[in-house]
Amino acid sequence: MVRVENTKNIAMSDSIVNLDHGDPTAYEEYWRKMGDRCTVTIRGCDLMSYFSDVNNLCWFLEPELAEGIKELHGAVGNAATEDRYIVVGTGSTQLCQAAVHALSLLAGGTEPVSIVAAAPYYSTYVEETTYVRSGMYKWEGDAWRFDKKGPFIELVTSPNNPDGTIRETVVNRPDDDEAKVIHDFAYYWPHYTPITRCQDHDIMLFTFSKITGHAGSRIGWALVKDKEVAKKMVEYITVNSIGVSKESQVRTAKILKVLKETCTSETENFFEYGREMMKNRWEKLREVVKESDFTLPKYPEGYCNFFGKTLESYPAFAWLGTKEETDLVNDLRRQKVVCRAGERCGSDKKHVRVSMLSREDVFNVFLERLANMKLIKSIDL
Amino acid sequence: MVRVENTKNIAMSDSIVNLDHGDPTAYEEYWRKMGDRCTVTIRGCDLMSYFSDVNNLCWFLEPELAEGIKELHGAVGNAATEDRYIVVGTGSTQLCQAAVHALSLLAGGTEPVSIVAAAPYYSTYVEETTYVRSGMYKWEGDAWRFDKKGPFIELVTSPNNPDGTIRETVVNRPDDDEAKVIHDFAYYWPHYTPITRCQDHDIMLFTFSKITGHAGSRIGWALVKDKEVAKKMVEYITVNSIGVSKESQVRTAKILKVLKETCTSETENFFEYGREMMKNRWEKLREVVKESDFTLPKYPEGYCNFFGKTLESYPAFAWLGTKEETDLVNDLRRQKVVCRAGERCGSDKKHVRVSMLSREDVFNVFLERLANMKLIKSIDL
Repeated sequence: MVRVENTKNIAMSDSIVNLDHGDPTAYEEYWRKMGDRCTVTIRGCDLMSYFSDVNNLCWFLEPELAEGIKELHGAVGNAATEDRYIVVGTGSTQLCQAAVHALSLLAGGTEPVSIVAAAPYYSTYVEETTYVRSGMYKWEGDAWRFDKKGPFIELVTSPNNPDGTIRETVVNRPDDDEAKVIHDFAYYWPHYTPITRCQDHDIMLFTFSKITGHAGSRIGWALVKDKEVAKKMVEYITVNSIGVSKESQVRTAKILKVLKETCTSETENFFEYGREMMKNRWEKLREVVKESDFTLPKYPEGYCNFFGKTLESYPAFAWLGTKEETDLVNDLRRQKVVCRAGERCGSDKKHVRVSMLSREDVFNVFLERLANMKLIKSIDL
Repeated sequence: MVRVENTKNIAMSDSIVNLDHGDPTAYEEYWRKMGDRCTVTIRGCDLMSYFSDVNNLCWFLEPELAEGIKELHGAVGNAATEDRYIVVGTGSTQLCQAAVHALSLLAGGTEPVSIVAAAPYYSTYVEETTYVRSGMYKWEGDAWRFDKKGPFIELVTSPNNPDGTIRETVVNRPDDDEAKVIHDFAYYWPHYTPITRCQDHDIMLFTFSKITGHAGSRIGWALVKDKEVAKKMVEYITVNSIGVSKESQVRTAKILKVLKETCTSETENFFEYGREMMKNRWEKLREVVKESDFTLPKYPEGYCNFFGKTLESYPAFAWLGTKEETDLVNDLRRQKVVCRAGERCGSDKKHVRVSMLSREDVFNVFLERLANMKLIKSIDL
């Protein structure tokens, strides 16, 4: 009976549900409830110069943003900021390219540096490392299959995009000076995954978009140990865009400050709010997928140092699979659900990446359509 | 007597005067006087999505910014916006690279497309077209000397950076499908130069930084005739930074709106204010340079359609030369004045580019030090 009603709703609704991008609009409601707490006011004469702090290696980084970043990491305990350079970027997208650029330049060879990531990987890495056809580096695909000699950079995303797993490097060349790693910690925050340790790697990338949902601000940051690497990253961003929007930086600083202040609150903790929402969505999704040909990864529990208890993972993307021999992305598209093809992530036709961060109504239409696919299948049988 | 006083002041002041970058802080005073007229207030729940308008080819362009751009060009009469795509960028820096990328891609060949600009040229073009070592295009330097076959892109900056001259293409290959042009109109605004015509080229770049002085916002826009070119530019910016800061866009929209509203005012006209300030600075500079070995370009007057009268040019940079056989950039550096070497602009050691857009006190110290160099020279003689 419920299923028939769902089918009717779907027939009525003609709109395309786009869950291809990870547009994190799910969190709007929280920020709406926060009212004026995060409001920023910028006068016409503010923030006019290219420069934020001429004495900082990253001269376009607003000091209050640097402060906010350090305080938030300190409060959450997910990454070490001591003795590190902070480089701000137009999203972590620009920073990832800046880091690849810097490491390739410092490798100093004449041959392009190999870039790899373990499949399934964030599909955008492919575009980021190929679109300008640079002679400095070369996308070499799946890190599991990589066996070339010479300098290489492994991109490690943990929790992983698209499949939510906890990742470490997979290319096994220990103590190799030619092996460099960029850690993308976009989703290493307590609403998505237990914070099991304070990360301490050479180059760590973070993005404002996936913490609080402010994707439109295009703010990311890198924590970088080595001064030369940080310097070359800053040089890249200088030529690429002469720095990063000051308006976005001061707004990010303000919101990170509120995030830090409220993250021990019982009623206003954003991470608690986010975790509850994600838990709820994942439970609903697992309910629909249950007793169907669809599959979802299982995640181990972990002790979260931030929440002080053992918790499950609720990734920002669902890595949806099917047991059938079918092209899942097209099956979903026929139901007007757009998501990212597994093949684009170095995987197969039987998997897709689905954003879990859409607005609530969009997520619910997605669930209805997925349930409907299950229903159609059982009628077929 | 005056000169001796100047010398004393300089001896007292030990700070470096940096006029290398065109940091346009000169206009801060105007915006301070405007008080709350341009203040923007952004709530925590605003502008969260990656998307501004999914139905626009440039999906990350805020509709109110598009409107503000069209209205301002309409009011000033410096560029045609009808039947054109507007592409917003993280400064015109990102847009120039997007345009080079798009045109090279659409050239479709296997050999890199040649990139040229007539010397003296904006030195950053060299870095922008070489730093990623792209296989798609190749910086070929001075357009005056360019005689290669095959597809090429000429970068035309008018008024020119660094020397303030009015420019057209110099590579003479008319009706050649392989000849593409990017017009950089960063300084084609009535405070710098008479608006003698409404520009109507295929790809025209503008930057918020040099109109109002809001360099920290990192906002530029391109007016593009061809849909495919606009599309490829948008694709470049999508991979490069997944769009452009929404905070900067809405603030730019607000300020452009005020600019448009006041540009016919007798008391509040920004362009009138800017022109008076620039006129004043240029007159002071020409006074110091007079009867010395320093040289400055002379500019023809032109009838300005915006102001409705014949006016002079007051470029944003002074292209300072010397009649002596000397390395001018080093001579100035010894006086603690940092500016850009002519050689970096494809010119010679006898020329430097000096920003005319610094804060008033910095500009005055520069004048003092320049006068002092003249004084030292006359003592030497």
